[in-house]
Amino acid sequence: MPRYGLIVEYFGPAFHGWQRQTDITSVQEVLETAIYAFTREAVALAAAGRTDAGVHATAQVAHVDLVKEYPAHTVLGAMNFHLHDRGAIVRQVWQADPEFHARFSATGRRYRYRILNRPVRSVLEQGRAWWFPGKLDIDAMQKAANYLLGTHDFSSFRAKDCQAQSPQKTLDRFHLTRVGEEIHCEVAARSFLHHQVRNMVGTLKLVGEGRWQPEDVRTALAACKRAAAGPTAPACGLYLTGVTYPPSLVPADYPQ
Amino acid sequence: MPRYGLIVEYFGPAFHGWQRQTDITSVQEVLETAIYAFTREAVALAAAGRTDAGVHATAQVAHVDLVKEYPAHTVLGAMNFHLHDRGAIVRQVWQADPEFHARFSATGRRYRYRILNRPVRSVLEQGRAWWFPGKLDIDAMQKAANYLLGTHDFSSFRAKDCQAQSPQKTLDRFHLTRVGEEIHCEVAARSFLHHQVRNMVGTLKLVGEGRWQPEDVRTALAACKRAAAGPTAPACGLYLTGVTYPPSLVPADYPQ
Repeated sequence: MPRYGLIVEYFGPAFHGWQRQTDITSVQEVLETAIYAFTREAVALAAAGRTDAGVHATAQVAHVDLVKEYPAHTVLGAMNFHLHDRGAIVRQVWQADPEFHARFSATGRRYRYRILNRPVRSVLEQGRAWWFPGKLDIDAMQKAANYLLGTHDFSSFRAKDCQAQSPQKTLDRFHLTRVGEEIHCEVAARSFLHHQVRNMVGTLKLVGEGRWQPEDVRTALAACKRAAAGPTAPACGLYLTGVTYPPSLVPADYPQ
Repeated sequence: MPRYGLIVEYFGPAFHGWQRQTDITSVQEVLETAIYAFTREAVALAAAGRTDAGVHATAQVAHVDLVKEYPAHTVLGAMNFHLHDRGAIVRQVWQADPEFHARFSATGRRYRYRILNRPVRSVLEQGRAWWFPGKLDIDAMQKAANYLLGTHDFSSFRAKDCQAQSPQKTLDRFHLTRVGEEIHCEVAARSFLHHQVRNMVGTLKLVGEGRWQPEDVRTALAACKRAAAGPTAPACGLYLTGVTYPPSLVPADYPQ
């Protein structure tokens, strides 16, 4: 059976998350329905990261096996035809190596968290960024973020229902930049615990406000319990922006 | 009567343009309704630029006269309370000089036009940028844009229903930059003809595609007739991003 790799963009608030559930709209369901509409094959998509309700993606990756073989551009065009106005779009399709698995082959995931930091809320960025009207000290936040880099037990930033086998993860990047009225948090790791990015951002915001010192984040991390860290930042600010794979498993024009 | 200056942000597709009309929703109407809701005064707002249906604003400027005097922050808070989920928001309010007129005091207007230039359409930027999937030569577009700088008869870029007394305008800035997958056209002038920015962008796109040479834009400008230039770019890509006033007429923290 030919296997296809897909890069997918979606607007989080249009869905109740990635994963297919009964009676509510998921990204997985609209994509599988679009595939069914042109192949008449009932398929199951696997994704690099099962994003939560309200979380966006600019470059989620999934794969699917089809019985019949189609050129990759036919899969792209047919899916996007059927996805019209459903809140998701396929950006790239390639015929993948049978070894390629969107989830298990991934060697890195990248997320962006957008904080809109201005006095008045925005109608243009509503549902697209976390609005915070007060002052945020980005240098203090970066200093705190640096304590999280490397390999740690991230239990303090792990959701209760997280299904990962181990709380130990390696954070490769946590970089904050001001972009106009926003603060962008760029985060990368091989994989993340459930809610880890949102829990880390919610905690750094306490530092930005001056309610916490950067060193308090180091203490919260060492405590290895969720209650030691700050609250979960809202889903609307979070974007899955890319997934890394071994170059041999993706085409040359895949955005690593 | 105390006069108030307002900076307003709005999402274009939520409105049939700035100007109040019967039976359809305009930015002017929802703002005037919000003022009525807390003052019980039926007012008429004047704006720096009467944007068309679908055009966005990050910083439109308007003024209003009220019978009763309120602190500026009360006007801001009360208006935004009543504007909840109407697609517009007031970003700043100040008690203005009686000489200040949002339209007639303005000495400059700035617009941004966003072209999303990638192979596949976007669900995240839908209604927020003009999608063009083909290659665009931004250097050729900039060269063409430079022919439009300065004082000219802009009849070739003027909408049929334009009510300006003269087709002569002075274009101060037309700068193109690539921002990720987008091309941003930053345009500034004292004032513009109706559809002038969209007609200029629609013409430059022909240059970007290679269908026109940059010099063809100079020829189109010199022809002084609308048929000589390219088509009108869609409203969804256009943002009114700022208005310039004499410093004596606006507060020190006004974003000039």
